[in-house]
Amino acid sequence: MASVSLDTINPKVLKCEYAVRGEIVTLAQALQEELKSKPGSHSFDEILYCNIGNPQSLGQQPITFFREVLALCDHPSILDKSQTRSLFSADAIKRARQILDQIPGRATGAYSHSQGIKGLRDTIAAGIEARDGFPADPNDIFLTDGASPAVHLMMQLLIRSEKDGILCPIPQYPLYSASIALRGGTLVPYYLDEAAGWGLEVSELKKQWADAKSKGITPRALVVINPGNPTGQVLAENNQREIVDFCKKEGLVLLADEVYQENVYVPEKKFHSFKKVARSMGYGEKDISVVSFQSVSKGYYGECGKRGGYMEVTGFGPEIREQIYKLASVNLCSNISGQILSSLVMSPPKVGDESYESFSAEKDGILSSLARRAKTLEDAFNTLEGVTCNKAEGAMYLFPCISLPEKAIKAAEAVKTTPDNFYCRRLLNATGIVFVPGSGFRQAPGTWHCRCTILPQEDKIPAVVSRLTEFHRSFMEEFRE
Amino acid sequence: MASVSLDTINPKVLKCEYAVRGEIVTLAQALQEELKSKPGSHSFDEILYCNIGNPQSLGQQPITFFREVLALCDHPSILDKSQTRSLFSADAIKRARQILDQIPGRATGAYSHSQGIKGLRDTIAAGIEARDGFPADPNDIFLTDGASPAVHLMMQLLIRSEKDGILCPIPQYPLYSASIALRGGTLVPYYLDEAAGWGLEVSELKKQWADAKSKGITPRALVVINPGNPTGQVLAENNQREIVDFCKKEGLVLLADEVYQENVYVPEKKFHSFKKVARSMGYGEKDISVVSFQSVSKGYYGECGKRGGYMEVTGFGPEIREQIYKLASVNLCSNISGQILSSLVMSPPKVGDESYESFSAEKDGILSSLARRAKTLEDAFNTLEGVTCNKAEGAMYLFPCISLPEKAIKAAEAVKTTPDNFYCRRLLNATGIVFVPGSGFRQAPGTWHCRCTILPQEDKIPAVVSRLTEFHRSFMEEFRE
Repeated sequence: MASVSLDTINPKVLKCEYAVRGEIVTLAQALQEELKSKPGSHSFDEILYCNIGNPQSLGQQPITFFREVLALCDHPSILDKSQTRSLFSADAIKRARQILDQIPGRATGAYSHSQGIKGLRDTIAAGIEARDGFPADPNDIFLTDGASPAVHLMMQLLIRSEKDGILCPIPQYPLYSASIALRGGTLVPYYLDEAAGWGLEVSELKKQWADAKSKGITPRALVVINPGNPTGQVLAENNQREIVDFCKKEGLVLLADEVYQENVYVPEKKFHSFKKVARSMGYGEKDISVVSFQSVSKGYYGECGKRGGYMEVTGFGPEIREQIYKLASVNLCSNISGQILSSLVMSPPKVGDESYESFSAEKDGILSSLARRAKTLEDAFNTLEGVTCNKAEGAMYLFPCISLPEKAIKAAEAVKTTPDNFYCRRLLNATGIVFVPGSGFRQAPGTWHCRCTILPQEDKIPAVVSRLTEFHRSFMEEFRE
Repeated sequence: MASVSLDTINPKVLKCEYAVRGEIVTLAQALQEELKSKPGSHSFDEILYCNIGNPQSLGQQPITFFREVLALCDHPSILDKSQTRSLFSADAIKRARQILDQIPGRATGAYSHSQGIKGLRDTIAAGIEARDGFPADPNDIFLTDGASPAVHLMMQLLIRSEKDGILCPIPQYPLYSASIALRGGTLVPYYLDEAAGWGLEVSELKKQWADAKSKGITPRALVVINPGNPTGQVLAENNQREIVDFCKKEGLVLLADEVYQENVYVPEKKFHSFKKVARSMGYGEKDISVVSFQSVSKGYYGECGKRGGYMEVTGFGPEIREQIYKLASVNLCSNISGQILSSLVMSPPKVGDESYESFSAEKDGILSSLARRAKTLEDAFNTLEGVTCNKAEGAMYLFPCISLPEKAIKAAEAVKTTPDNFYCRRLLNATGIVFVPGSGFRQAPGTWHCRCTILPQEDKIPAVVSRLTEFHRSFMEEFRE
């Protein structure tokens, strides 16, 4: 065997952690195998994966129109058959033809331009324009296999050493900490204010920026996740303006994780893209660098398995754009089905299209159900002893704070784990419900949280609530001093 | 604008080069735009992309059975409709059902296990066993978005600094040089012997290994591309045994790029996987670390746009496997269509299946045509003044050596480019044919090559040959001393 050991591999790999697929999930997979091989071996009969924003794994159905178009693009030779007209909607057939016409040689099996098929980028840019009311350039779009590779690409571009800092919210989505660790950079934390509904205070940004500078770290970029993950808050436009001004003043690249742009559940909040906010302040290409990440995995579509997404890259000079293009080209291109789907989510059926009504019914059904589930779970958490939970204004998660008894904290120490991990492990073993411990996202020192998705189907929510409530009651009893 | 300049980005990004999508291709895209906006503006009416192994971009049709299954998995709700039975073959419907049953919740839109859907890995492992006659473990399979991310993952795992070396063939596929540059490692070159049909001599491996050691570099892995890219040779089994023994002795990870395993065109050669060779020598898990890369982009299928592939990882301890899994999990999973297609190419229709005959006709038609095209182009190159070209025994490329006149070399110097780049640029401007200069793959000092794919459709080959011949004649005339 080759001389490969933990001592001889890249230490940055060792340092990297990715909690949403970490220890708890491995334990859950083992339990699932046990349930399969020995039914009745546990007090629950299924594992409920609330660890990850993966809607279709919990029963959410794909949007019919999108899947019709994908199927037709995968097998275009049926487009001219009469039976196809009775199996597929007329506008799906029409859209598939349009898309095929945009692909050089109609070759859905060919590598595309490394930024993605030009015609699809035109559609996406038009979708962004319609959303924002400001121009978008198809040459600014880089289609990617989900949003993750786009984030890695930007980190790879910006980070030279541990002296380069990336400002990240705490709590954050662990893709950021993992990607920064893999590139050997420094995560500069800024804390969201839990007491103010996970508010993002610019005074906190300034403080952490100055603190990093004083340690010899050069802040290069600011990550903002809006709507928030794992925190679920939706930023107010006014707050976004302050953030834009801060980035402009300090020369920071604004990395805007906007993958939950369709997931807003409260009428008083609305999604605004950071590029729109910057443009509405009169800032153009030369004033600020903004990268917006979007994905087909979230929204009402939840097409995680398709690995589609894009980044819109603005405010970089041509010589840097060339480097970004080169990095994209090293993997040749993203998958074409994901590219097609990215164009579809940015340009869904419109009033008058045959599919419009059924499409709208599917979309509204999913989003209104998510809003109800978010509220029910939030209320449930807030009835638990020692638990407080902010509202999920958007995204797909709740991030309740749990005041754990001293005795539970000691019990966790005794088995060499963190208290939140201890809690989540107990919950899983008792109920089959998978949460992610707050440690995986980082949290204010001395506080303990867990992240729970709002994605179990509505008919399962009562069982989640009752199992969770019962578990929590008995856990608190067990560790009461 | 943020303070991002060539001076402040990651210098490893600057150092990275990727010729198959480099300067010549950018020029070709510009010419294509000109042809579109001003027809007749050049002496040719189309760009012939012979720069990259992208068969469907040049008119190769996808394998019908594979596309049927993909379409049905994308839109499973048509599976039960009667019209579907008249549009799709019975075995495609059956296979789609089997695959859907292997996917938890039949959710093709969900993130899968980070190694890929277990049932599909079972199918792939069975396909490897059938190919090699030795056991394969589904837990050794990591499904990836094409082979490139798998190569990047292994480089990320192994490379700590410029003191870590990766032995690579010269000429090599630029993914390797790019990936090593991005991780900051050292490419340790070993030269293939052009005069011996691009032979791989173990004495050369030993020499370069010792030379690297003497410079303080630790060789960590050996890359072998078999069948070769850009060189087209197919290794003899005996040669493979020597390579295996060398890796075993020196504790090198054997990174076996086997993406052209279906592309062998000469009866006297046969593909043998390195794992099979190692096992046939009696070496097991504890003796040697072998990683085999496979892709849906090559073979007779050529499904580049689907971004499917896998690596089979053997001979690492569980603690290293855990790190590989963690790296895979940071991007969650590869795209499900690519995963499905990977299982299909490793388990195509069999004798007795409804699609078997039409499938075999499509497959054999493509492979025999590729063999004819390889021969025709090889012969054409060998008739050109100062050009010698080895046989393409496999893969999709020819890599002719061109003795350029001194005057042409000086002319290249005068415009600050390499002679091979100069030649390829002239060729493109005169004929619309896109080759990649040998520099992009590296070549023995003082020699000049270009890489040409064998992928233009057969009816275009005569035009390629005559345009190339005419160009070469006039080029040599122009620069004759």
